[in-house]
Amino acid sequence: MATKKKEQPIILITNDDGITAPGIRSLVEAAKPLGKVVVVAPDKPQSGMGHAITIGTPLRMNKVELFGDIEAWQTSGTPVDCVKLAVDKILHRKPDLCLSGINHGANHSINVIYSGTMSAAMEASIESIPSIGFSLLDYRFEADFTAATFYANKIIQTILKQKLDKHLLLNVNIPPVPKKEIKGIKICKQAYAKYVEDFDERKDPQGKKYYWLTGEFVNFDKSKDTDVWALQNNYVSVVPVQFDLTNYALKQQLEKKKLFK
Amino acid sequence: MATKKKEQPIILITNDDGITAPGIRSLVEAAKPLGKVVVVAPDKPQSGMGHAITIGTPLRMNKVELFGDIEAWQTSGTPVDCVKLAVDKILHRKPDLCLSGINHGANHSINVIYSGTMSAAMEASIESIPSIGFSLLDYRFEADFTAATFYANKIIQTILKQKLDKHLLLNVNIPPVPKKEIKGIKICKQAYAKYVEDFDERKDPQGKKYYWLTGEFVNFDKSKDTDVWALQNNYVSVVPVQFDLTNYALKQQLEKKKLFK
Repeated sequence: MATKKKEQPIILITNDDGITAPGIRSLVEAAKPLGKVVVVAPDKPQSGMGHAITIGTPLRMNKVELFGDIEAWQTSGTPVDCVKLAVDKILHRKPDLCLSGINHGANHSINVIYSGTMSAAMEASIESIPSIGFSLLDYRFEADFTAATFYANKIIQTILKQKLDKHLLLNVNIPPVPKKEIKGIKICKQAYAKYVEDFDERKDPQGKKYYWLTGEFVNFDKSKDTDVWALQNNYVSVVPVQFDLTNYALKQQLEKKKLFK
Repeated sequence: MATKKKEQPIILITNDDGITAPGIRSLVEAAKPLGKVVVVAPDKPQSGMGHAITIGTPLRMNKVELFGDIEAWQTSGTPVDCVKLAVDKILHRKPDLCLSGINHGANHSINVIYSGTMSAAMEASIESIPSIGFSLLDYRFEADFTAATFYANKIIQTILKQKLDKHLLLNVNIPPVPKKEIKGIKICKQAYAKYVEDFDERKDPQGKKYYWLTGEFVNFDKSKDTDVWALQNNYVSVVPVQFDLTNYALKQQLEKKKLFK
Protein backbone atom coordinates (compact mmCIF):
# COMPACT_ATOMS: atom_id res chain seq x y z
CA MET A 1 0.00 0.00 0.00
CA ALA A 2 1.54 3.24 -1.14
CA THR A 3 0.24 5.18 1.86
CA LYS A 4 1.15 2.67 4.58
CA LYS A 5 4.65 1.53 3.74
CA LYS A 6 5.60 0.57 7.25
CA GLU A 7 2.50 -1.42 8.11
CA GLN A 8 1.60 -4.80 6.73
CA PRO A 9 -1.67 -4.73 4.80
CA ILE A 10 -4.51 -6.65 6.42
CA ILE A 11 -5.81 -9.24 3.98
CA LEU A 12 -9.21 -10.85 4.56
CA ILE A 13 -9.69 -14.25 2.91
CA THR A 14 -13.01 -16.00 2.34
CA ASN A 15 -14.49 -18.49 -0.12
CA ASP A 16 -17.67 -20.34 -1.02
CA ASP A 17 -16.44 -23.95 -1.00
CA GLY A 18 -16.15 -23.87 2.79
CA ILE A 19 -13.22 -23.36 5.14
CA THR A 20 -11.94 -26.94 4.74
CA ALA A 21 -11.65 -26.79 0.93
CA PRO A 22 -8.10 -27.12 -0.45
CA GLY A 23 -8.59 -23.99 -2.59
CA ILE A 24 -8.73 -21.58 0.37
CA ARG A 25 -5.57 -23.17 1.78
CA SER A 26 -3.80 -22.35 -1.49
CA LEU A 27 -5.02 -18.77 -1.35
CA VAL A 28 -3.71 -18.42 2.21
CA GLU A 29 -0.34 -19.71 0.96
CA ALA A 30 -0.37 -17.18 -1.88
CA ALA A 31 -1.23 -14.22 0.38
CA LYS A 32 0.71 -15.03 3.56
CA PRO A 33 4.02 -13.52 2.43
CA LEU A 34 2.27 -10.29 1.44
CA GLY A 35 0.39 -9.18 4.55
CA LYS A 36 -1.41 -10.07 7.77
CA VAL A 37 -3.95 -12.67 6.70
CA VAL A 38 -7.26 -13.32 8.52
CA VAL A 39 -9.58 -16.09 7.28
CA VAL A 40 -13.37 -15.85 7.73
CA ALA A 41 -15.16 -18.51 5.70
CA PRO A 42 -18.34 -20.61 5.66
CA ASP A 43 -18.38 -23.80 7.74
CA LYS A 44 -19.86 -25.72 4.79
CA PRO A 45 -19.87 -25.51 0.97
CA GLN A 46 -21.99 -22.60 -0.37
CA SER A 47 -21.52 -22.93 -4.13
CA GLY A 48 -24.24 -21.40 -6.28
CA MET A 49 -25.43 -19.19 -3.42
CA GLY A 50 -25.05 -16.07 -5.56
CA HIS A 51 -25.23 -12.89 -3.53
CA ALA A 52 -27.35 -14.56 -0.83
CA ILE A 53 -27.42 -13.07 2.66
CA THR A 54 -28.84 -14.64 5.79
CA ILE A 55 -31.78 -12.66 7.14
CA GLY A 56 -34.22 -15.27 8.45
CA THR A 57 -31.88 -17.13 10.80
CA PRO A 58 -29.19 -15.96 13.21
CA LEU A 59 -25.51 -16.51 12.43
CA ARG A 60 -22.90 -18.42 14.41
CA MET A 61 -19.14 -18.11 14.24
CA ASN A 62 -16.28 -20.01 15.85
CA LYS A 63 -12.53 -19.52 15.89
CA VAL A 64 -10.70 -22.49 14.35
CA GLU A 65 -7.10 -23.60 14.04
CA LEU A 66 -6.72 -24.78 10.50
CA PHE A 67 -4.00 -22.58 9.04
CA GLY A 68 -1.14 -22.69 11.55
CA ASP A 69 -0.59 -19.24 13.04
CA ILE A 70 -3.17 -17.53 10.81
CA GLU A 71 -6.29 -16.26 12.62
CA ALA A 72 -9.28 -18.13 11.20
CA TRP A 73 -13.04 -18.17 11.83
CA GLN A 74 -15.78 -20.36 10.44
CA THR A 75 -19.34 -19.04 10.23
CA SER A 76 -22.76 -20.55 9.57
CA GLY A 77 -23.41 -17.86 6.96
CA THR A 78 -22.96 -17.34 3.24
CA PRO A 79 -19.76 -15.89 1.68
CA VAL A 80 -21.39 -12.43 1.74
CA ASP A 81 -22.28 -12.86 5.43
CA CYS A 82 -18.63 -13.77 6.09
CA VAL A 83 -17.40 -10.45 4.70
CA LYS A 84 -19.96 -8.50 6.74
CA LEU A 85 -19.11 -10.44 9.94
CA ALA A 86 -15.37 -10.06 9.36
CA VAL A 87 -15.55 -6.27 9.05
CA ASP A 88 -18.05 -5.74 11.84
CA LYS A 89 -17.29 -8.42 14.44
CA ILE A 90 -13.77 -9.75 13.87
CA LEU A 91 -11.48 -7.10 12.37
CA HIS A 92 -13.51 -4.13 13.68
CA ARG A 93 -12.13 -2.25 10.66
CA LYS A 94 -11.96 -2.60 6.89
CA PRO A 95 -9.18 -4.85 5.65
CA ASP A 96 -6.85 -3.37 3.02
CA LEU A 97 -7.69 -6.12 0.58
CA CYS A 98 -10.25 -8.91 0.41
CA LEU A 99 -9.54 -12.17 -1.43
CA SER A 100 -12.08 -14.87 -2.22
CA GLY A 101 -11.35 -18.42 -3.37
CA ILE A 102 -9.53 -20.16 -4.82
CA ASN A 103 -12.80 -21.57 -6.11
CA HIS A 104 -12.93 -25.18 -7.24
CA GLY A 105 -14.47 -24.56 -10.68
CA ALA A 106 -14.86 -21.80 -13.27
CA ASN A 107 -16.38 -18.39 -12.52
CA HIS A 108 -15.77 -16.86 -15.94
CA SER A 109 -18.41 -15.27 -18.21
CA ILE A 110 -21.96 -15.32 -16.83
CA ASN A 111 -20.89 -17.46 -13.85
CA VAL A 112 -19.82 -14.26 -12.11
CA ILE A 113 -23.52 -13.71 -11.36
CA TYR A 114 -24.16 -17.11 -9.74
CA SER A 115 -20.85 -17.31 -7.95
CA GLY A 116 -20.62 -17.16 -4.17
CA THR A 117 -16.87 -16.58 -4.59
CA MET A 118 -17.42 -13.45 -6.65
CA SER A 119 -20.33 -12.29 -4.49
CA ALA A 120 -18.09 -12.20 -1.44
CA ALA A 121 -15.57 -10.16 -3.44
CA MET A 122 -18.34 -7.89 -4.71
CA GLU A 123 -19.66 -7.37 -1.20
CA ALA A 124 -16.19 -6.20 -0.18
CA SER A 125 -16.05 -3.85 -3.16
CA ILE A 126 -19.44 -2.36 -2.20
CA GLU A 127 -17.97 -1.85 1.29
CA SER A 128 -15.10 0.12 -0.30
CA ILE A 129 -12.59 -2.71 0.16
CA PRO A 130 -10.47 -3.54 -2.94
CA SER A 131 -11.16 -7.13 -3.72
CA ILE A 132 -10.19 -10.08 -5.94
CA GLY A 133 -11.93 -13.40 -6.56
CA PHE A 134 -9.90 -16.39 -7.77
CA SER A 135 -11.19 -19.54 -9.47
CA LEU A 136 -9.48 -22.57 -10.95
CA LEU A 137 -11.17 -24.33 -13.88
CA ASP A 138 -11.15 -27.69 -12.11
CA TYR A 139 -14.11 -28.78 -10.00
CA ARG A 140 -12.34 -31.67 -8.29
CA PHE A 141 -11.46 -31.69 -4.59
CA GLU A 142 -8.02 -33.03 -5.56
CA ALA A 143 -7.43 -30.32 -8.20
CA ASP A 144 -3.80 -29.19 -8.59
CA PHE A 145 -3.56 -25.60 -7.27
CA THR A 146 0.16 -25.11 -8.00
CA ALA A 147 -0.24 -22.78 -10.97
CA ALA A 148 -3.27 -21.06 -9.40
CA THR A 149 -1.32 -20.33 -6.21
CA PHE A 150 1.62 -18.97 -8.21
CA TYR A 151 -0.56 -16.62 -10.25
CA ALA A 152 -2.67 -15.58 -7.24
CA ASN A 153 0.53 -14.53 -5.44
CA LYS A 154 1.75 -12.64 -8.52
CA ILE A 155 -1.56 -10.78 -8.97
CA ILE A 156 -1.99 -9.91 -5.27
CA GLN A 157 1.60 -8.62 -5.19
CA THR A 158 1.03 -6.46 -8.29
CA ILE A 159 -2.25 -5.06 -6.97
CA LEU A 160 -0.85 -4.26 -3.51
CA LYS A 161 1.87 -2.15 -5.17
CA GLN A 162 -0.73 0.09 -6.83
CA LYS A 163 -2.63 2.99 -5.37
CA LEU A 164 -5.88 1.09 -5.11
CA ASP A 165 -9.30 2.28 -6.13
CA LYS A 166 -11.40 1.44 -3.06
CA HIS A 167 -13.99 -0.29 -5.26
CA LEU A 168 -11.43 -2.26 -7.30
CA LEU A 169 -12.92 -5.66 -8.05
CA LEU A 170 -11.24 -8.32 -10.19
CA ASN A 171 -12.51 -11.70 -11.32
CA VAL A 172 -9.50 -13.95 -11.90
CA ASN A 173 -9.80 -17.40 -13.49
CA ILE A 174 -6.93 -19.86 -13.97
CA PRO A 175 -6.90 -22.49 -16.73
CA PRO A 176 -6.64 -26.15 -15.61
CA VAL A 177 -3.19 -26.78 -17.06
CA PRO A 178 0.32 -27.13 -15.62
CA LYS A 179 2.11 -23.86 -14.81
CA LYS A 180 4.57 -24.19 -17.68
CA GLU A 181 1.71 -24.25 -20.20
CA ILE A 182 0.19 -20.97 -18.98
CA LYS A 183 1.06 -18.17 -21.40
CA GLY A 184 0.51 -15.23 -19.05
CA ILE A 185 -2.22 -12.93 -17.68
CA LYS A 186 -4.83 -11.23 -19.86
CA ILE A 187 -7.18 -8.34 -18.93
CA CYS A 188 -10.54 -9.37 -20.40
CA LYS A 189 -14.21 -8.58 -20.60
CA GLN A 190 -16.92 -10.95 -19.39
CA ALA A 191 -17.97 -13.25 -22.26
CA TYR A 192 -21.64 -13.62 -23.14
CA ALA A 193 -21.78 -17.33 -22.55
CA LYS A 194 -24.32 -19.32 -20.58
CA TYR A 195 -25.60 -22.70 -19.61
CA VAL A 196 -28.26 -24.09 -21.90
CA GLU A 197 -30.28 -25.78 -19.21
CA ASP A 198 -31.85 -29.11 -19.07
CA PHE A 199 -33.45 -30.87 -16.15
CA ASP A 200 -32.85 -34.53 -15.49
CA GLU A 201 -36.34 -35.79 -14.61
CA ARG A 202 -36.51 -38.80 -12.27
CA LYS A 203 -39.06 -40.57 -10.09
CA ASP A 204 -38.65 -41.15 -6.36
CA PRO A 205 -39.54 -44.50 -4.72
CA GLN A 206 -43.11 -43.15 -4.22
CA GLY A 207 -43.41 -42.50 -7.95
CA LYS A 208 -43.31 -38.70 -7.61
CA LYS A 209 -41.23 -36.69 -10.09
CA TYR A 210 -38.17 -34.70 -9.11
CA TYR A 211 -35.62 -32.74 -11.15
CA TRP A 212 -31.85 -32.28 -11.16
CA LEU A 213 -30.51 -29.14 -12.79
CA THR A 214 -28.01 -29.97 -15.55
CA GLY A 215 -26.82 -27.92 -18.49
CA GLU A 216 -24.34 -27.49 -21.28
CA PHE A 217 -22.00 -24.49 -21.39
CA VAL A 218 -22.29 -22.54 -24.63
CA ASN A 219 -20.17 -19.51 -25.55
CA PHE A 220 -22.07 -17.08 -27.79
CA ASP A 221 -19.26 -14.52 -27.73
CA LYS A 222 -16.64 -15.10 -30.41
CA SER A 223 -14.48 -12.03 -29.74
CA LYS A 224 -10.90 -12.47 -28.57
CA ASP A 225 -10.93 -10.12 -25.60
CA THR A 226 -13.22 -12.29 -23.46
CA ASP A 227 -12.33 -14.37 -20.42
CA VAL A 228 -13.55 -17.53 -22.14
CA TRP A 229 -11.18 -16.96 -25.09
CA ALA A 230 -8.25 -16.24 -22.77
CA LEU A 231 -8.84 -19.40 -20.73
CA GLN A 232 -9.27 -21.57 -23.83
CA ASN A 233 -5.91 -20.26 -24.98
CA ASN A 234 -4.21 -20.99 -21.64
CA TYR A 235 -4.09 -17.44 -20.28
CA VAL A 236 -5.07 -16.45 -16.76
CA SER A 237 -8.11 -14.16 -17.26
CA VAL A 238 -8.60 -10.97 -15.22
CA VAL A 239 -11.99 -9.26 -15.64
CA PRO A 240 -12.48 -5.91 -13.87
CA VAL A 241 -16.00 -6.04 -12.40
CA GLN A 242 -18.47 -3.37 -11.22
CA PHE A 243 -21.56 -3.44 -9.05
CA ASP A 244 -23.39 -0.65 -10.87
CA LEU A 245 -25.71 -2.75 -13.05
CA THR A 246 -27.31 0.25 -14.81
CA ASN A 247 -27.56 -0.32 -18.56
CA TYR A 248 -26.70 3.26 -19.57
CA ALA A 249 -27.17 2.63 -23.30
CA LEU A 250 -30.70 1.35 -22.75
CA LYS A 251 -31.35 4.20 -20.27
CA GLN A 252 -30.51 6.72 -23.00
CA GLN A 253 -32.69 4.90 -25.54
CA LEU A 254 -35.69 4.82 -23.22
CA GLU A 255 -35.24 8.49 -22.32
CA LYS A 256 -35.03 9.44 -26.00
CA LYS A 257 -38.22 7.57 -26.81
CA LYS A 258 -40.04 9.28 -23.92
CA LEU A 259 -41.77 5.95 -23.36
CA PHE A 260 -43.37 6.69 -20.04
CA LYS A 261 -44.33 10.35 -20.52
CA MET B 1 -45.77 -7.70 -29.82
CA ALA B 2 -45.22 -5.99 -33.13
CA THR B 3 -44.44 -9.25 -34.92
CA LYS B 4 -47.25 -11.37 -33.46
CA LYS B 5 -50.30 -9.17 -33.59
CA LYS B 6 -52.81 -11.99 -33.67
CA GLU B 7 -51.33 -14.06 -30.87
CA GLN B 8 -51.46 -13.18 -27.21
CA PRO B 9 -47.99 -12.80 -25.68
CA ILE B 10 -47.08 -15.50 -23.16
CA ILE B 11 -46.18 -13.84 -19.86
CA LEU B 12 -44.30 -15.80 -17.20
CA ILE B 13 -44.71 -14.51 -13.64
CA THR B 14 -42.50 -15.41 -10.70
CA ASN B 15 -41.39 -13.81 -7.43
CA ASP B 16 -39.22 -14.32 -4.37
CA ASP B 17 -41.76 -13.85 -1.58
CA GLY B 18 -43.41 -17.16 -2.46
CA ILE B 19 -46.50 -18.06 -4.47
CA THR B 20 -48.92 -17.17 -1.64
CA ALA B 21 -47.63 -13.59 -1.18
CA PRO B 22 -50.17 -10.84 -1.98
CA GLY B 23 -47.64 -9.11 -4.27
CA ILE B 24 -47.64 -11.85 -6.92
CA ARG B 25 -51.43 -11.80 -6.95
CA SER B 26 -51.30 -8.07 -7.76
CA LEU B 27 -48.82 -8.71 -10.59
CA VAL B 28 -51.13 -11.38 -12.04
CA GLU B 29 -53.98 -8.84 -11.93
CA ALA B 30 -51.78 -6.26 -13.69
CA ALA B 31 -50.67 -8.66 -16.45
CA LYS B 32 -53.84 -10.73 -17.03
CA PRO B 33 -55.51 -8.30 -19.45
CA LEU B 34 -52.32 -8.14 -21.54
CA GLY B 35 -51.48 -11.74 -22.40
CA LYS B 36 -51.60 -15.43 -21.49
CA VAL B 37 -50.20 -15.53 -17.96
CA VAL B 38 -48.45 -18.56 -16.45
CA VAL B 39 -47.22 -18.44 -12.83
CA VAL B 40 -44.17 -20.45 -11.67
CA ALA B 41 -43.05 -19.37 -8.20
CA PRO B 42 -41.32 -20.67 -5.07
CA ASP B 43 -43.45 -22.58 -2.54
CA LYS B 44 -41.91 -20.54 0.30
CA PRO B 45 -40.33 -17.08 0.81
CA GLN B 46 -36.88 -16.72 -0.79
CA SER B 47 -35.97 -13.12 0.02
CA GLY B 48 -32.28 -12.30 0.05
CA MET B 49 -31.44 -15.39 -2.02
CA GLY B 50 -29.63 -13.28 -4.63
CA HIS B 51 -28.90 -15.22 -7.79
CA ALA B 52 -28.89 -18.56 -5.95
CA ILE B 53 -29.51 -21.74 -7.90
CA THR B 54 -30.21 -25.19 -6.51
CA ILE B 55 -27.47 -27.63 -7.42
CA GLY B 56 -27.05 -29.86 -4.36
CA THR B 57 -30.66 -31.01 -4.00
CA PRO B 58 -33.28 -32.05 -6.54
CA LEU B 59 -36.26 -29.82 -7.29
CA ARG B 60 -39.95 -30.54 -6.92
CA MET B 61 -42.86 -28.81 -8.61
CA ASN B 62 -46.64 -29.05 -8.29
CA LYS B 63 -49.53 -27.51 -10.16
CA VAL B 64 -51.70 -25.37 -7.89
CA GLU B 65 -55.03 -23.57 -8.21
CA LEU B 66 -54.47 -20.20 -6.62
CA PHE B 67 -55.24 -17.72 -9.40
CA GLY B 68 -58.59 -18.79 -10.84
CA ASP B 69 -58.17 -19.89 -14.46
CA ILE B 70 -54.45 -18.95 -14.61
CA GLU B 71 -52.03 -21.91 -14.90
CA ALA B 72 -49.81 -21.89 -11.80
CA TRP B 73 -46.99 -24.03 -10.43
CA GLN B 74 -45.13 -23.92 -7.14
CA THR B 75 -41.57 -25.24 -6.95
CA SER B 76 -39.15 -26.07 -4.15
CA GLY B 77 -36.47 -23.96 -5.88
CA THR B 78 -35.21 -20.40 -5.83
CA PRO B 79 -36.63 -17.64 -8.08
CA VAL B 80 -33.85 -18.37 -10.61
CA ASP B 81 -34.72 -22.10 -10.55
CA CYS B 82 -38.36 -21.16 -11.24
CA VAL B 83 -37.42 -19.36 -14.47
CA LYS B 84 -35.26 -22.29 -15.61
CA LEU B 85 -38.00 -24.85 -14.77
CA ALA B 86 -40.69 -22.74 -16.43
CA VAL B 87 -38.83 -22.52 -19.74
CA ASP B 88 -37.61 -26.10 -19.78
CA LYS B 89 -40.34 -28.15 -18.11
CA ILE B 90 -43.59 -26.15 -18.14
CA LEU B 91 -43.79 -23.82 -21.15
CA HIS B 92 -41.36 -25.83 -23.29
CA ARG B 93 -40.56 -22.52 -24.98
CA LYS B 94 -39.43 -19.03 -24.04
CA PRO B 95 -42.21 -16.74 -22.85
CA ASP B 96 -42.49 -13.38 -24.64
CA LEU B 97 -42.03 -11.52 -21.35
CA CYS B 98 -41.04 -12.45 -17.81
CA LEU B 99 -42.30 -10.50 -14.80
CA SER B 100 -41.05 -10.88 -11.24
CA GLY B 101 -42.72 -9.53 -8.10
CA ILE B 102 -44.40 -7.47 -6.96
CA ASN B 103 -41.83 -7.67 -4.20
CA HIS B 104 -42.79 -6.71 -0.66
CA GLY B 105 -39.96 -4.23 -0.02
CA ALA B 106 -37.48 -2.05 -1.90
CA ASN B 107 -35.08 -3.34 -4.56
CA HIS B 108 -33.61 0.00 -5.56
CA SER B 109 -29.91 0.97 -5.55
CA ILE B 110 -27.53 -1.79 -4.42
CA ASN B 111 -30.46 -4.04 -3.43
CA VAL B 112 -30.64 -5.15 -7.05
CA ILE B 113 -27.66 -7.39 -6.27
CA TYR B 114 -29.20 -9.13 -3.24
CA SER B 115 -32.67 -9.37 -4.64
CA GLY B 116 -34.26 -12.69 -5.54
CA THR B 117 -36.93 -10.74 -7.43
CA MET B 118 -34.35 -9.08 -9.69
CA SER B 119 -32.29 -12.27 -10.02
CA ALA B 120 -35.27 -14.09 -11.50
CA ALA B 121 -35.72 -11.21 -13.94
CA MET B 122 -31.99 -11.21 -14.72
CA GLU B 123 -32.03 -14.96 -15.33
CA ALA B 124 -34.78 -14.43 -17.90
CA SER B 125 -32.76 -11.65 -19.55
CA ILE B 126 -29.70 -13.93 -19.78
CA GLU B 127 -32.02 -16.48 -21.42
CA SER B 128 -32.96 -13.82 -24.02
CA ILE B 129 -36.40 -13.20 -22.50
CA PRO B 130 -37.32 -9.50 -22.01
CA SER B 131 -37.97 -9.08 -18.34
CA ILE B 132 -39.17 -6.67 -15.64
CA GLY B 133 -38.90 -6.87 -11.85
CA PHE B 134 -41.39 -4.92 -9.70
CA SER B 135 -41.00 -3.94 -6.05
CA LEU B 136 -43.12 -1.89 -3.68
CA LEU B 137 -41.34 0.04 -0.92
CA ASP B 138 -43.48 -1.56 1.79
CA TYR B 139 -42.30 -4.72 3.54
CA ARG B 140 -45.63 -5.53 5.18
CA PHE B 141 -47.76 -8.52 4.18
CA GLU B 142 -50.80 -6.22 4.26
CA ALA B 143 -49.15 -3.55 2.04
CA ASP B 144 -51.51 -1.67 -0.30
CA PHE B 145 -50.68 -2.75 -3.87
CA THR B 146 -53.25 -0.52 -5.60
CA ALA B 147 -50.79 2.01 -7.02
CA ALA B 148 -48.18 -0.70 -7.71
CA THR B 149 -50.70 -2.75 -9.69
CA PHE B 150 -51.77 0.31 -11.70
CA TYR B 151 -48.20 1.25 -12.62
CA ALA B 152 -47.18 -2.36 -13.30
CA ASN B 153 -50.05 -2.64 -15.78
CA LYS B 154 -49.08 0.67 -17.42
CA ILE B 155 -45.41 -0.30 -17.76
CA ILE B 156 -46.10 -3.83 -19.04
CA GLN B 157 -48.52 -2.41 -21.59
CA THR B 158 -45.98 0.19 -22.77
CA ILE B 159 -43.19 -2.38 -23.01
CA LEU B 160 -45.29 -4.94 -24.91
CA LYS B 161 -46.02 -2.27 -27.57
CA GLN B 162 -42.30 -1.84 -28.30
CA LYS B 163 -40.06 -3.96 -30.47
CA LEU B 164 -38.30 -5.56 -27.54
CA ASP B 165 -34.60 -6.08 -27.13
CA LYS B 166 -34.39 -9.75 -26.14
CA HIS B 167 -32.16 -8.85 -23.17
CA LEU B 168 -34.32 -5.92 -22.00
CA LEU B 169 -34.25 -5.88 -18.22
CA LEU B 170 -35.95 -3.25 -16.06
CA ASN B 171 -35.90 -2.78 -12.30
CA VAL B 172 -39.11 -1.00 -11.31
CA ASN B 173 -39.71 0.30 -7.78
CA ILE B 174 -42.92 1.92 -6.58
CA PRO B 175 -43.02 4.44 -3.69
CA PRO B 176 -45.21 3.53 -0.69
CA VAL B 177 -47.77 6.29 -1.16
CA PRO B 178 -51.37 6.47 -2.46
CA LYS B 179 -51.74 6.48 -6.27
CA LYS B 180 -52.81 10.14 -6.39
CA GLU B 181 -49.54 11.22 -4.77
CA ILE B 182 -47.36 9.48 -7.38
CA LYS B 183 -45.95 12.06 -9.82
CA GLY B 184 -45.15 9.72 -12.71
CA ILE B 185 -42.47 7.32 -13.98
CA LYS B 186 -38.76 8.22 -14.11
CA ILE B 187 -35.98 6.40 -16.00
CA CYS B 188 -33.07 6.31 -13.52
CA LYS B 189 -29.64 4.95 -12.78
CA GLN B 190 -28.87 2.68 -9.82
CA ALA B 191 -27.89 4.83 -6.81
CA TYR B 192 -24.70 4.08 -4.93
CA ALA B 193 -26.37 3.46 -1.61
CA LYS B 194 -25.83 0.61 0.80
CA TYR B 195 -26.59 -0.81 4.18
CA VAL B 196 -24.13 0.13 6.88
CA GLU B 197 -24.18 -3.17 8.69
CA ASP B 198 -24.34 -3.97 12.27
CA PHE B 199 -24.88 -7.29 13.95
CA ASP B 200 -27.17 -7.66 16.92
CA GLU B 201 -25.16 -9.94 19.23
CA ARG B 202 -27.16 -12.17 21.61
CA LYS B 203 -26.64 -15.21 23.77
CA ASP B 204 -28.65 -18.41 23.45
CA PRO B 205 -29.95 -20.29 26.56
CA GLN B 206 -26.65 -22.23 26.59
CA GLY B 207 -24.71 -18.97 26.80
CA LYS B 208 -23.33 -19.24 23.26
CA LYS B 209 -23.23 -16.11 21.09
CA TYR B 210 -25.29 -15.69 17.94
CA TYR B 211 -25.77 -12.76 15.57
CA TRP B 212 -28.69 -11.17 13.71
CA LEU B 213 -27.85 -9.09 10.65
CA THR B 214 -29.19 -5.55 10.97
CA GLY B 215 -28.22 -2.36 9.17
CA GLU B 216 -29.05 1.19 8.35
CA PHE B 217 -29.65 2.29 4.77
CA VAL B 218 -27.35 5.11 3.68
CA ASN B 219 -27.47 6.88 0.30
CA PHE B 220 -24.03 8.12 -0.80
CA ASP B 221 -25.29 9.26 -4.19
CA LYS B 222 -26.68 12.78 -4.16
CA SER B 223 -27.41 13.10 -7.90
CA LYS B 224 -30.99 13.55 -9.07
CA ASP B 225 -31.09 10.85 -11.75
CA THR B 226 -30.95 7.93 -9.29
CA ASP B 227 -33.70 5.54 -8.31
CA VAL B 228 -33.39 6.57 -4.66
CA TRP B 229 -33.98 10.26 -5.54
CA ALA B 230 -36.97 9.39 -7.75
CA LEU B 231 -38.59 7.27 -5.03
CA GLN B 232 -37.99 9.88 -2.33
CA ASN B 233 -39.76 12.35 -4.59
CA ASN B 234 -42.74 10.04 -5.18
CA TYR B 235 -41.85 8.88 -8.69
CA VAL B 236 -41.96 5.27 -9.87
CA SER B 237 -38.30 4.45 -10.69
CA VAL B 238 -37.32 2.41 -13.75
CA VAL B 239 -33.65 1.37 -13.93
CA PRO B 240 -32.51 -0.44 -17.11
CA VAL B 241 -30.22 -3.25 -15.92
CA GLN B 242 -27.52 -5.33 -17.60
CA PHE B 243 -25.82 -8.61 -16.74
CA ASP B 244 -22.44 -7.72 -18.27
CA LEU B 245 -20.59 -6.72 -15.09
CA THR B 246 -17.35 -5.79 -16.87
CA ASN B 247 -15.95 -2.49 -15.59
CA TYR B 248 -14.77 -1.21 -18.99
CA ALA B 249 -13.23 1.98 -17.58
CA LEU B 250 -11.06 -0.03 -15.16
CA LYS B 251 -10.27 -2.52 -17.93
CA GLN B 252 -8.87 0.30 -20.06
CA GLN B 253 -6.87 1.69 -17.11
CA LEU B 254 -5.31 -1.69 -16.32
CA GLU B 255 -4.48 -2.30 -19.97
CA LYS B 256 -2.86 1.12 -20.26
CA LYS B 257 -0.72 0.51 -17.17
CA LYS B 258 0.40 -2.88 -18.58
CA LEU B 259 0.17 -4.13 -14.99
CA PHE B 260 0.60 -7.80 -15.63
CA LYS B 261 3.15 -7.74 -18.46
